[in-house]
Amino acid sequence: MSLGEFDLIAKYFTRPQAPSGATVLGVGDDCALLQPTAGRQWAVSSDMLVEGRHFLSTVAPERLGHKALAVNLSDLAACGADPVACTLALALPRVDEAFLAGLSQGFFALADAHGIALVGGDTTAGPLNLCITVFGELPAGQALRRDGARVGDALWVSHPVGGGIGDARLALEVFRGTLALPGEAFERVRRAMELPQPRVALGRALRGLATAAIDVSDGLAGDLGHILRRSGVAAVIDVDALPVSPDLASQPLAVQRAYALAGGDDYELLFTAPADADGAVRAAAEAANSTNPGGPAVAVRRIGRIEAADPSAPALRLLDGAGRPLALALRGFDHFATP
Amino acid sequence: MSLGEFDLIAKYFTRPQAPSGATVLGVGDDCALLQPTAGRQWAVSSDMLVEGRHFLSTVAPERLGHKALAVNLSDLAACGADPVACTLALALPRVDEAFLAGLSQGFFALADAHGIALVGGDTTAGPLNLCITVFGELPAGQALRRDGARVGDALWVSHPVGGGIGDARLALEVFRGTLALPGEAFERVRRAMELPQPRVALGRALRGLATAAIDVSDGLAGDLGHILRRSGVAAVIDVDALPVSPDLASQPLAVQRAYALAGGDDYELLFTAPADADGAVRAAAEAANSTNPGGPAVAVRRIGRIEAADPSAPALRLLDGAGRPLALALRGFDHFATP
Repeated sequence: MSLGEFDLIAKYFTRPQAPSGATVLGVGDDCALLQPTAGRQWAVSSDMLVEGRHFLSTVAPERLGHKALAVNLSDLAACGADPVACTLALALPRVDEAFLAGLSQGFFALADAHGIALVGGDTTAGPLNLCITVFGELPAGQALRRDGARVGDALWVSHPVGGGIGDARLALEVFRGTLALPGEAFERVRRAMELPQPRVALGRALRGLATAAIDVSDGLAGDLGHILRRSGVAAVIDVDALPVSPDLASQPLAVQRAYALAGGDDYELLFTAPADADGAVRAAAEAANSTNPGGPAVAVRRIGRIEAADPSAPALRLLDGAGRPLALALRGFDHFATP
Repeated sequence: MSLGEFDLIAKYFTRPQAPSGATVLGVGDDCALLQPTAGRQWAVSSDMLVEGRHFLSTVAPERLGHKALAVNLSDLAACGADPVACTLALALPRVDEAFLAGLSQGFFALADAHGIALVGGDTTAGPLNLCITVFGELPAGQALRRDGARVGDALWVSHPVGGGIGDARLALEVFRGTLALPGEAFERVRRAMELPQPRVALGRALRGLATAAIDVSDGLAGDLGHILRRSGVAAVIDVDALPVSPDLASQPLAVQRAYALAGGDDYELLFTAPADADGAVRAAAEAANSTNPGGPAVAVRRIGRIEAADPSAPALRLLDGAGRPLALALRGFDHFATP
């Protein structure tokens, strides 16, 4: 990349901004300088997105900019942290002004919606790769963690109002050609795959209420496994209670169940809460929507419960709506790996 | 990548460690949790390393692990920050146990030498790419920045004791086949290219003394340009005062000057200090060596001074040892871009 090309990247990813909030010094020095708030902890997470694995070459640059930040904000949401700042490192095979303009538009639209500042990063020539590191703050000791689920807790998952989980996988399978959808339905599930909505406001509202949380990126059942292992517990899921969109509901029941349980790329929150706290959990979702009036509305669904671990049995039991055991072979989902 | 392959990566990059220092919660949750020290600021920087650009495919994995972290620690050094924690995101074309073992060995050897904790990250299949984000702390308001150079300040550069700057470029040119060196000399300059030593202790010792600082990654003259632009000043360099190793001194004078001024990949500190502070600057280098007894010894060399900016003249003047102006065509160095 020539120096002129670096200037072009700077044009789209450096915005004139006065230091504000935690940012003492932003883009343009060896390091950004941030001033932590007294008494709060920092939550930090990095995600790297690679073409063909985390996004397809067909994605619009605006949506790629959105998604790269969204999957990182989703990690802050899963901890209940308030977004503060982020860095963006970008490897580009060539400098394409239309691509950069779209990428920065999608990135900053989501960044502004969540009040997160881009404070630094790196750009280089190379195979397309986006690596974002996010920093959030939260009161010391109040982070939602994976290790806090207790026997008897209820198990919940968030979902879009009127929608469900598993739609991103449905879109991926249309791209792969393993199934077909009418045009309008495809556009809807494609939005689920390309424009995930990080549940930051919900995560914040669940502080002090949820006992454990994780974001669903690799598939609900697999991500639940992380909570179960770290908390030393087991779980039962009422598979027919899983929220499913009308588009996924148009598919055979086995497909619905497989994509909802192990579709991947959902970026919803999977969390546990005391069994007697249903009203408080629903109130937290309403509070999240009221603090985010123009944003995408979120709902929560109770889908199961936490049980005591039994070393001689699987940690996850699946039941249908009538309480009958289901034996589903669920494969771990590794984003867009060849099936 | 299969789940088994992810386990292999975890084997080499997840070390059992009790929470310590700033780390409340390390690898294994959605986010790491860090507890800032009251009254201190955080310095944050991200660097992305791509094969063929920031390192050659011939590099030993141990040295790659060292270099990936070193170039990030060098950014903390240039701000005078104390290293605290880092994240590592890694894209790998295939999982090679010997490569991972070497990479983690080189990475953790340098991390341990600087007391920096690996608290999170990401791994994915993809073209080889390493993205590291580092976090450091320093007393509020004491960061070394690029915008503090004042007219009359002395200009300094660090270098290895007995060595100089420009050796990394000399090694690169041997790899490129544009020049040849005897075997022992090649091994020495190859170490300069593959095992840069971040000047963390020196940066810390320069807090409250240096008026501006930057680390030399793209070439001394080009990186000085960042200080000059942000500080609104000009500079003069005594080119014959630049520290040059015996290996580089064996090359023609024009090559010595070009590589020392614009070689790139040096990761030394370029800084300004008050003209009457020579003794204090030398004492800072001695203090850095005394706090780092087993580590690589650093020296400092006064190479020029800061002048008032003159809009009608170039911001950087080059003189030879006799005070005669030199007209050298220096190209910006973009790491391993094709020349």
